[in-house]
Amino acid sequence: MLYLLDIFGTLIFAISGAFKASQKELDVLGALILAVATGVGGGIVRDVLLGATPPAAFQDELYFIVCLCGGTLVIFIAPYIARQWNMVMAADALGLGVFAAIGAAKASHFGLGPMGIIFMASMTAVGGGVIRDVLANDVPAIVHTDFYATAAIIGGSLFAILYVFNIPEPVLLLVTIVSTTGIRLVAMHWKLSLPRVRRLKK
Amino acid sequence: MLYLLDIFGTLIFAISGAFKASQKELDVLGALILAVATGVGGGIVRDVLLGATPPAAFQDELYFIVCLCGGTLVIFIAPYIARQWNMVMAADALGLGVFAAIGAAKASHFGLGPMGIIFMASMTAVGGGVIRDVLANDVPAIVHTDFYATAAIIGGSLFAILYVFNIPEPVLLLVTIVSTTGIRLVAMHWKLSLPRVRRLKK
Amino acid sequence: MLYLLDIFGTLIFAISGAFKASQKELDVLGALILAVATGVGGGIVRDVLLGATPPAAFQDELYFIVCLCGGTLVIFIAPYIARQWNMVMAADALGLGVFAAIGAAKASHFGLGPMGIIFMASMTAVGGGVIRDVLANDVPAIVHTDFYATAAIIGGSLFAILYVFNIPEPVLLLVTIVSTTGIRLVAMHWKLSLPRVRRLKK
Repeated sequence: MLYLLDIFGTLIFAISGAFKASQKELDVLGALILAVATGVGGGIVRDVLLGATPPAAFQDELYFIVCLCGGTLVIFIAPYIARQWNMVMAADALGLGVFAAIGAAKASHFGLGPMGIIFMASMTAVGGGVIRDVLANDVPAIVHTDFYATAAIIGGSLFAILYVFNIPEPVLLLVTIVSTTGIRLVAMHWKLSLPRVRRLKK
Repeated sequence: MLYLLDIFGTLIFAISGAFKASQKELDVLGALILAVATGVGGGIVRDVLLGATPPAAFQDELYFIVCLCGGTLVIFIAPYIARQWNMVMAADALGLGVFAAIGAAKASHFGLGPMGIIFMASMTAVGGGVIRDVLANDVPAIVHTDFYATAAIIGGSLFAILYVFNIPEPVLLLVTIVSTTGIRLVAMHWKLSLPRVRRLKK
Repeated sequence: MLYLLDIFGTLIFAISGAFKASQKELDVLGALILAVATGVGGGIVRDVLLGATPPAAFQDELYFIVCLCGGTLVIFIAPYIARQWNMVMAADALGLGVFAAIGAAKASHFGLGPMGIIFMASMTAVGGGVIRDVLANDVPAIVHTDFYATAAIIGGSLFAILYVFNIPEPVLLLVTIVSTTGIRLVAMHWKLSLPRVRRLKK
């Protein structure tokens, strides 16, 4: 079940990566590269940081294939997908939750503390998007898009807190997915935003 | 032989890195940093992903020294090198092929599957250039320059396909180098390009 | 003692990261992300390259907490800190020296040669700032700010040279800290700069 959700999240993230390529008028290869980078980038960085090499995406090549499918879909039927953009964003919120949960669980397996669990949850969830934006030479969405990383951080924090109480992992995963996805959907619906840091003339 | 080609590729890539610094009017240190990042960056990322740490470049310091020489050359005789730019680009195509072959071979030694081999071939070949462009705050050439990464991907794919048939490694290496370098040279000569992704108003 | 200096350096770097967020008018989460990335980013990249995973910052969570404190400080009392900017820059020079020394020592523990020691000293010292600038979509300061990375490179080189002579580690650490910090302060005071690479029309 978690595996299927993980594959699903990878597909959605790959689609968001390939869309960035269409916004930047890149060629089809650029679209596939951004699809792969966005789909598996977060998990790869997480595994490298944990020392779990080669990363999971290299041990089950279905992840790469799913990314390439997502990228190909965008290349061929981008206008159709764009018309369903609200549905894509809802699916993206689910992917965010699933990736946060998987990252948090993997961090706990490697014996990390609460900050490490929150870090790995967020990194898995938003790392691919950061790589996508850096490659496309944009300021990464996470440092200015409200309640995207925040949702993953809150979900990861819940995992880290409940983990202390020896709650079984399936419950932890479920709580993380539901809270992250829920917060993201709520934030999208009501357009919640965080306060800016006051600008200074230095 | 492969070792000498590897050193040669590192030198050429370092030169391309240092040239980026001159285009951006960076100082001499920036030129050396970009020379090192471009020359050994791809291989270092490959080794980190494979878990082969510390990366090869740290175990044979000749790689760093070659990078610094390449950077220094550009600092002192950049105008002379620039006049030979066609020769530099041809040498760069050879470096691309050599790096792709080495990346593919190393991936196969670590037991990766076909997608992993193609990924590591491309990463080794173009990773240094991506780091160079990210540091110089440009959109990485690979997501918009036609038939650069593509050549490495095709070369890596040939390696991955032939690898299944138990063909001896020296043959695989040769096929990868010749195909990658050849495609790159052909693409440069005829200015081949890939189709763009259609732009959307989202 | 070194541990306290390390924590202090992390705090100062985190503050410089969060200030970048205020310059870019990011939200409070962006400020915290840049604080963490700048404070612990260099050390994390160093540990990943060395294969010392999970990186030190995940094994002692005080580092993350210090980063979050630094980021929070900037969010709340940025104008006050900005008025003391010269003091912050002096503290930053000390952090640079401490991080360079720690990076050099760790590289020597992992058996790297002179180039590896210099690389790890510089990477630890300036890596966080590079990540900060890449995330904020600026050209990294190290490739154009004079005598920042240079100071760390000189400090790391002194470590690498003296290391050959079997000088005890505490002396090496002290020499690296004093030289790096000293050169940085001198360069700031006299506004020293390196020559540019001549621009070419390619």
